[in-house]
Amino acid sequence: MKIRGVPENVETAETTDAGTRPAARPGGRNARVRSQILAATTELVARNGVAGLRYEEIAELAGVNKNSVYRNWPDRAELVSDALLQYAEDSAPLRDSGNLRRDLVDFLMVFSERLSSSIGRALSQAAIASPGNTDLDEAVRVAYDQRLDTARRRFDSAVDKGEIPPVDSYFLTELLSGPVYLYINRRRHPFTREVAEKIVDVVLAGIHATTP
Amino acid sequence: MKIRGVPENVETAETTDAGTRPAARPGGRNARVRSQILAATTELVARNGVAGLRYEEIAELAGVNKNSVYRNWPDRAELVSDALLQYAEDSAPLRDSGNLRRDLVDFLMVFSERLSSSIGRALSQAAIASPGNTDLDEAVRVAYDQRLDTARRRFDSAVDKGEIPPVDSYFLTELLSGPVYLYINRRRHPFTREVAEKIVDVVLAGIHATTP
Repeated sequence: MKIRGVPENVETAETTDAGTRPAARPGGRNARVRSQILAATTELVARNGVAGLRYEEIAELAGVNKNSVYRNWPDRAELVSDALLQYAEDSAPLRDSGNLRRDLVDFLMVFSERLSSSIGRALSQAAIASPGNTDLDEAVRVAYDQRLDTARRRFDSAVDKGEIPPVDSYFLTELLSGPVYLYINRRRHPFTREVAEKIVDVVLAGIHATTP
Repeated sequence: MKIRGVPENVETAETTDAGTRPAARPGGRNARVRSQILAATTELVARNGVAGLRYEEIAELAGVNKNSVYRNWPDRAELVSDALLQYAEDSAPLRDSGNLRRDLVDFLMVFSERLSSSIGRALSQAAIASPGNTDLDEAVRVAYDQRLDTARRRFDSAVDKGEIPPVDSYFLTELLSGPVYLYINRRRHPFTREVAEKIVDVVLAGIHATTP
């Protein structure tokens, strides 16, 4: 489908490789445009909520043509959900370096930085404010479920290697990230790498000790 | 000091025991009035923030005379701080029954109920929204420090009895209550007594296992 004479992928015209779908090339211009749109969407949702979200504003903040936004995301709910998903993934990547303890400490450190940011604070606040029945709440849930999937895969890999006993990945994720959440939001004591290491050590030791 | 001809403690006139300070008698009328004023204050702060707080509204919601509010709390910041303190204490009493595990599980259950309430949600949200430099933030900190003191005393008593090794009570409090916070605010899985027990068991076992 063409919209008002704009090619279906404007970005295609600017790539040398017009026969393939640019979105599939990581780091390509389309991927970059999409990423800018998603970042702008997250910032605007954090600032004004989902109801006030306007494609014109997103395009302006992202520095792209409005049609790029419409074409990639004709559905607004999907745009918000994809934006929060990207934010969540950037917020706390859970790598698999082969060393579970180090990966978890890194994960908590990045999570704490994002929680401290103004966008992180606004999203936490919005999610607490509107339980159950708003677009934002639904988008936060979708993004959150995706992150839990990543965590589950990481824990499964650690279980396979005998690093930890079989474990409820939701429970383990909340056990690890909950204290970080309170350290950051209550601002009573600084959250440091040493604290992150202590959390991971106590929780992993506790999981070992309580698994029959 | 008398204000516009009102006796310093109007409640005194209604007690048989006018020679003592009524506030000191737990369960007395003055204690009840104070408690109603504090509950009304918390509700209004949660609803409108500290800036919009009016003594007239507090008195109306509490069903008391406006002078009772002024007389007991000439300073508004102190009123807000006392209100949040009472709320925090009611929110999650940490008893000392002699059984640390049971006391902690009870504490997490009450904490979870309060977090789920509309006042609890509003206060969490307000505290996240205004870091560092508002009256509310300061009041939340004072109330929170008071609760940490209670936790510290409870943990010290458990250390004395050899139930747990010496421990950083702030760290332990956040480790226990953080996961509850996320279970309630992310609403992905129900928070049950079984979950509370699992949290307490894993954390206490982890503390034992990681203390040299």
